[in-house]
Amino acid sequence: MPLRVPAAEDERFMREALRLGEKAALVDSTGGPFGCVIVKGGKIIAAGSNQVVKRKDPTWHGEMEAIRAAAKARQTFDLSGCTLYTTSEPCPMCAGAIFWARIDRVVYASTIADALRYGQFDDQPIYEDLAKPIAERLTPAVQCLREEMLELWRRYEAKADRIRY
Amino acid sequence: MPLRVPAAEDERFMREALRLGEKAALVDSTGGPFGCVIVKGGKIIAAGSNQVVKRKDPTWHGEMEAIRAAAKARQTFDLSGCTLYTTSEPCPMCAGAIFWARIDRVVYASTIADALRYGQFDDQPIYEDLAKPIAERLTPAVQCLREEMLELWRRYEAKADRIRY
Repeated sequence: MPLRVPAAEDERFMREALRLGEKAALVDSTGGPFGCVIVKGGKIIAAGSNQVVKRKDPTWHGEMEAIRAAAKARQTFDLSGCTLYTTSEPCPMCAGAIFWARIDRVVYASTIADALRYGQFDDQPIYEDLAKPIAERLTPAVQCLREEMLELWRRYEAKADRIRY
Repeated sequence: MPLRVPAAEDERFMREALRLGEKAALVDSTGGPFGCVIVKGGKIIAAGSNQVVKRKDPTWHGEMEAIRAAAKARQTFDLSGCTLYTTSEPCPMCAGAIFWARIDRVVYASTIADALRYGQFDDQPIYEDLAKPIAERLTPAVQCLREEMLELWRRYEAKADRIRY
């Protein structure tokens, strides 16, 4: 069972995530102070840091980079057995990615409230928005051509060799 | 103001997303039947499709690929003014990315319930989980070294040339 309390090795790995966050924000100026490492079997298998500004990519959060790198390194979309260390509580995008990657455990340093206070990074409204049905969210969303998509779904359902994931 | 109702051009762009989803699922077998295009000023500026299986990357959803490609093409993390067309209602990861990218409007074909029924893709529990505080979520999460991160936050806050995003 993944630990719901801090483990002896957590501080060591978090310090590496902090080092990456510091480098991103204060040395290389690639983005905010967000660093991330992914650990399996007591070893770091992948790392990432925020590069939204440098890469001009709104999805380049440390967690996303680390998850993609870990999946590539292990050649699997299933990162069961891994712990993700991140300098700040994950945003909904990264929390969703952590879920899809089947990460076992998350260790974080600062909270969403800390990130708002010190960095004006405001994740809370996004979390609140995503808790609503899509039709009630801030970004206007409309449905279109559902019947054509259902036909594609039926053909996908009937595909004998589809790989479930 | 972004339209909250279907627009005349929506069907045309959704058909292109459907074509990409069909290609991904039934022709190239890269993943599920998920295709996406991003449109600005009446033109497709980026596209993506699900490649989770092919790339062995749990984050390779059509929306993520399209957002990254659009940002790269336009050399900005701000995709204001863009509409995103996706064959199925976005998962929390992609909905988070849509938010960070400041996409104006989302058009989708099938719903989360459709994706569960035909493809066994179950996003609903993730949405429900992310609506809870991190300590109550399915993936165990623990806090570690917050004080050291607050010190980094203070240094970031004091950085004169930081770029807000």
